[in-house]
Amino acid sequence: MGIVVELDEKRNKKPSFEALSAIVSSDMLLVNKLILKGMESPVTLIPQLAKHVISAGGKRLRPMLTLASAKLCNYDGARHVTLATCIEFIHTATLLHDDVVDDSKLRRGLETANSVWGNQASVLVGDFLFSRSFELMVEDGSVKVMRILASASACLAEGEVMQLLTANDTETGESAYLDVIKAKTAQLFAAACRLGAVVADRPNVEEEGLEAFGMNLGVAFQLIDDVLDYSAIQNTLGKTIGDDFREGKITLPVILAFRRGNDEERGFWQRALGELDQKDGDLEHAITLMKKHQALNDTIERARHYGAMARDSLGIFPKSKIKDALINLIDFCIERPY
Amino acid sequence: MGIVVELDEKRNKKPSFEALSAIVSSDMLLVNKLILKGMESPVTLIPQLAKHVISAGGKRLRPMLTLASAKLCNYDGARHVTLATCIEFIHTATLLHDDVVDDSKLRRGLETANSVWGNQASVLVGDFLFSRSFELMVEDGSVKVMRILASASACLAEGEVMQLLTANDTETGESAYLDVIKAKTAQLFAAACRLGAVVADRPNVEEEGLEAFGMNLGVAFQLIDDVLDYSAIQNTLGKTIGDDFREGKITLPVILAFRRGNDEERGFWQRALGELDQKDGDLEHAITLMKKHQALNDTIERARHYGAMARDSLGIFPKSKIKDALINLIDFCIERPY
Repeated sequence: MGIVVELDEKRNKKPSFEALSAIVSSDMLLVNKLILKGMESPVTLIPQLAKHVISAGGKRLRPMLTLASAKLCNYDGARHVTLATCIEFIHTATLLHDDVVDDSKLRRGLETANSVWGNQASVLVGDFLFSRSFELMVEDGSVKVMRILASASACLAEGEVMQLLTANDTETGESAYLDVIKAKTAQLFAAACRLGAVVADRPNVEEEGLEAFGMNLGVAFQLIDDVLDYSAIQNTLGKTIGDDFREGKITLPVILAFRRGNDEERGFWQRALGELDQKDGDLEHAITLMKKHQALNDTIERARHYGAMARDSLGIFPKSKIKDALINLIDFCIERPY
Repeated sequence: MGIVVELDEKRNKKPSFEALSAIVSSDMLLVNKLILKGMESPVTLIPQLAKHVISAGGKRLRPMLTLASAKLCNYDGARHVTLATCIEFIHTATLLHDDVVDDSKLRRGLETANSVWGNQASVLVGDFLFSRSFELMVEDGSVKVMRILASASACLAEGEVMQLLTANDTETGESAYLDVIKAKTAQLFAAACRLGAVVADRPNVEEEGLEAFGMNLGVAFQLIDDVLDYSAIQNTLGKTIGDDFREGKITLPVILAFRRGNDEERGFWQRALGELDQKDGDLEHAITLMKKHQALNDTIERARHYGAMARDSLGIFPKSKIKDALINLIDFCIERPY
């Protein structure tokens, strides 16, 4: 009996985003409906391709953040559903363009849209979804909301360009890397959360609290994403590892291993990522070097630091079920195996 | 002496957009300044690449339309400058993505951004410019303006996807082709013109008049663009001919030549454009067939039809110097050698 209790306790403690998911589930159904409606076009390739990406699963984390933030602010209107959909469209447009830029063949174990329909269609349908998200914002009609989303979108594009420029550059430092992930990932998380306070017409301090929560959560999320690209566990979940390695992306695990390595090791990183001259066994060797230098564990430690800041950003909000669920989400983003 | 007069008369009659250009020149200086400011980013590749495309010349036709339409409506504020810049950014973002989609090496005789900096950077800087145009609209702050531009942007993306789908399909009919060029080109012309009436707060009938002017002008403009891709004159102006042919784009000159041709000729079009199996001399043969079937001349005739509608759309506006210049612009768009 004792053992059973222990297992149950462990299960209860295991971070998940199910609590959050359950709280926003009815709103999320509305978001999913609006997503389907927003993809409609007489040009049938558009919904076909868009559905492929959007229904490929994913955790719908970003729209969930908007829904949850609105709930945390006791919002009882319907605008958060429209804006959560906007956020998901911006994210999806970025995914489509990312896969073209990275020449990716697989995403979440499925063929990418560009490998099914070609790069051309992916670029253009990405543009369509971006325009559609813009139409949804106009429907919402708040210039304040549009300002937040326009600025997040511009940041996102800047972040993607920065990432392109640091690719294959093994000299990239941790702060340049942080600039990239703040811009390309965390800004949209921050906007998604801030919008919850905006629709609820809450005071500025709450807008800023939620924005800081999203920003720190986004950084933590991306740090773990970059760890997962070198950790084998996820392999069982249909995700491929080693994408970043094959593309020569300079993420924190690489930066730490490179800076902590000896000349021979740096030579390896330079050949494999700097010159993209990769041989069989290189990915395994990279992982070995990362383990030798604690690069993966220390990246997770960095993520915990941002997770702690995300948690404190919520300090101004009174205790509630939804706040607990958001805090649990931080832990999930850090401990998640996928 | 008689001869000199005749030449002068001819010169005066020759359609040009210089009259229009002169009328909006001081506003255009402001647009150019705002363009430079809008491209700024700490990520230096962004202004570098954007400048390459934007300063590559072009006629700045679209922003000029916004400036001129505002003037036609006696607008004396400054919003038209911001919105003209938005229009140019949306157009430039589309050019960048187009060149990636078409894998173009040259534009206006210069290397395309994608051939200098790669497809990846072009996709991302296109996204940046699109976001930046969105930020400029937010600065303007009118939801009505944003609705017009959001809807034009979504149309534009739809048009580009439609064009991708009709590429290499020699069965494409004239009405499908018209749908494509209305969506991918004319809608932005229409929006550019409509905004002139919107900022001047003119009655709906003037908004609609200017929108119809822009729409018809845009169709005429694209028809002539498609003719110029098969006509040799421009060659002297640094433009390459045969781009559409090499990419297998099904434009009206092709549609007319295909439909008016015999089985052997259709076989040729099917091989060269349907299957993209092209040999030396094919482009010349295509032009010969177009001439045989009056396909180029009749496409110009179709453009004149839209030009006539554009002219009539301006009927509700009283005679003025700027109206004359806009009508001259229609003729220029149709008679232009480049």
